[in-house]
Amino acid sequence: MCYCNPNWIISLCEATKDDLSLLLAWRNHPEVMKYFIEQKGPIVWENHCAWWHKRRNRIDWMIVVDTGQSVRRVGSVNASNLETLSPSVGIFIGEVTLWGQGVAKKALVLALDWLNRMRYVQAGATIVKSNERSIRLFESVGFVRIGEAREGEWEYRKSL
Amino acid sequence: MCYCNPNWIISLCEATKDDLSLLLAWRNHPEVMKYFIEQKGPIVWENHCAWWHKRRNRIDWMIVVDTGQSVRRVGSVNASNLETLSPSVGIFIGEVTLWGQGVAKKALVLALDWLNRMRYVQAGATIVKSNERSIRLFESVGFVRIGEAREGEWEYRKSL
Repeated sequence: MCYCNPNWIISLCEATKDDLSLLLAWRNHPEVMKYFIEQKGPIVWENHCAWWHKRRNRIDWMIVVDTGQSVRRVGSVNASNLETLSPSVGIFIGEVTLWGQGVAKKALVLALDWLNRMRYVQAGATIVKSNERSIRLFESVGFVRIGEAREGEWEYRKSL
Repeated sequence: MCYCNPNWIISLCEATKDDLSLLLAWRNHPEVMKYFIEQKGPIVWENHCAWWHKRRNRIDWMIVVDTGQSVRRVGSVNASNLETLSPSVGIFIGEVTLWGQGVAKKALVLALDWLNRMRYVQAGATIVKSNERSIRLFESVGFVRIGEAREGEWEYRKSL
């Protein structure tokens, strides 16, 4: 894996309704979409909004990259099942040309730091088996494969 | 062609730097990108910004849909070569699930209305030959094919 420019500052800010258009545009990119577990095919605005409003026990952040030249949103990371002892983490980089540059790794670490500060001691992740990039990413920050979630999906866990 | 809900209000607002992330996300969707004449493959942020800042004699609008339930940006339309007697018009709907619902047609008419108010008497368009949806759209508002622009592209024109 390459690493993003060390001068880039990666931060998270909580997603708001103003981010919904950008999130939808990213979610409907075929290369992003194909690894979403619940999404088969492009999603329509109304369902995207319904998903947003019915979220419970979940936080979604926008991943913000400050390159010195620009500050912009490039993807999203979330923690769900926050009512349990082992919240689930999910992530994607919507700006597809940034893939492989280590932005997701930094953002994932920030999300895990947040969970740690919130006194969680464990995190989980469910990853489509064919999503090799995501598997490498989660394993690189210490997630361990603990079995099969559903057919075609791996279940991962990490102590915080 | 289907037509969008007659209660939907389609309007244009001039694009700003705040729209650049959304525009990039749309431009990098394979189904949108493949009909861009100048773009081969996903574009990186820096080139996207460079394109934005070097635009001259051109106006880019965001296409805004007000459905009554939501007001959101769904695509972009532009007029370029504004220093000539026959500006060129380009358009795309970035929210891909809205294709075929007549949103682009209404937005294109609004852009042509603007050119008309600006005292232009003619508009042009260059369309990739395989872009049948776009060809139907431009012909439906009165554009006439006048020949081949470059290989693989049709040149269209319309009196305003």
